Amino acid sequence: MAAPGAGGELLLLGTWSSPWVIRVRVALGLKGLSYDYLEEDLANKSDLLLRSNPVHKKVPVLIHGGRPVRESLVILQYLDESWPTTTGPPPLLPADPYDRATARFWAAYVNDKFFPAFRVLFRSLTDEQRAEALQSAVPAVETLERAFAECSRGKAFFGGDAVGIVDIALGSHLIWIRVVDEVGGTDLLDGAKFPGLAAWAERFVAVDAVKKVTPDAGKVLEQYKGFRAKWIAAAGST
Amino acid sequence: MAAPGAGGELLLLGTWSSPWVIRVRVALGLKGLSYDYLEEDLANKSDLLLRSNPVHKKVPVLIHGGRPVRESLVILQYLDESWPTTTGPPPLLPADPYDRATARFWAAYVNDKFFPAFRVLFRSLTDEQRAEALQSAVPAVETLERAFAECSRGKAFFGGDAVGIVDIALGSHLIWIRVVDEVGGTDLLDGAKFPGLAAWAERFVAVDAVKKVTPDAGKVLEQYKGFRAKWIAAAGST
Repeated sequence: MAAPGAGGELLLLGTWSSPWVIRVRVALGLKGLSYDYLEEDLANKSDLLLRSNPVHKKVPVLIHGGRPVRESLVILQYLDESWPTTTGPPPLLPADPYDRATARFWAAYVNDKFFPAFRVLFRSLTDEQRAEALQSAVPAVETLERAFAECSRGKAFFGGDAVGIVDIALGSHLIWIRVVDEVGGTDLLDGAKFPGLAAWAERFVAVDAVKKVTPDAGKVLEQYKGFRAKWIAAAGST
Repeated sequence: MAAPGAGGELLLLGTWSSPWVIRVRVALGLKGLSYDYLEEDLANKSDLLLRSNPVHKKVPVLIHGGRPVRESLVILQYLDESWPTTTGPPPLLPADPYDRATARFWAAYVNDKFFPAFRVLFRSLTDEQRAEALQSAVPAVETLERAFAECSRGKAFFGGDAVGIVDIALGSHLIWIRVVDEVGGTDLLDGAKFPGLAAWAERFVAVDAVKKVTPDAGKVLEQYKGFRAKWIAAAGST
């Protein structure tokens, strides 16, 4: 029997609700690539995951021809460079070097600045914690609203006419932003304050390749409620 | 008068001892590109820096034809893609998509895992703090020793026969590693424990383009002692 992901095949190791995994699934869908998918139990990681990503032991890992590619933004660039498309779907990164640098800058911003700020909101258990978290999360969204104007230049997406790496980087968090908003009574991408980003979000979630891999909002809400119950229990026990 | 960095010129905004700036200077040197350099005073940032990098307000910024490129690893890729070299110096990233993904993975590791661990050692004021910092820094170096074997495949550099993006990402910290070792009596890249990396470090600092932009070790030591005096005063006043 061949090893998983051997040959030219693609095998994705993921968890169903991870934004980092959703990124890779959206990109694979946009590229029209078929792949196998293995759902990981992070409480009991598979030998294949531990062997494929010994440094971080995290999903996603995309195994291509038996070789593991790790880190969502690295995987997106790998897909773009392994399946360059001149006639097919548009590339995830623009062609022009300056536009590529801008896209890489903003994708890194989503990882390094937006997400850590959002994560504090995500972990907030009380109104007080939530108010404090918003002090960092809202300015990050303000910055992204300006980034959207800079990258999209009046078009539909950060990537212009088509979804690109920045769209995927940020858009993968939308399902979680909505669930956090619902539970906490917040409106992080408030359409009155952030008209560009709010309209972009509506367009992004309506893209076929996105819809196909977006987990069910009800299931994500249930998972979030489960996380919160554990955090509350842990907070109570300290 | 033309704006700084207008036309096709390159203008680098930096500070003389910053590893992130050294990265860009090494890459510019390897590419054989000439550029203007503006030394920034981080206590009194120039309007040009604030305007060129309003999001992070940090160096390095490389202004090319009037347009700012920000973040050292983004700049390195920008240089590679703007000045692709088929006959000149070897590219900073390998040609093969899988090797490129591996290089991006390890360059990100230096930023996201090695540097935060090293920074704690850099900030250590007491033997106790230093011992605790080494608990995280040494495993990060162990991981990089394995990375070196994986990337170099028996050759001189992470990039193979020539210096590449991972060499530059890690090598830019060498001058600081040596100064921190000297002050603290540590030996972070201990040749007995990390033979690959220790020998690599010797080769890296001997590269012409590296030597030319490496700040004077005595000056870096003086700067470090100045930092420490401030940290000690601040620790004493709390």
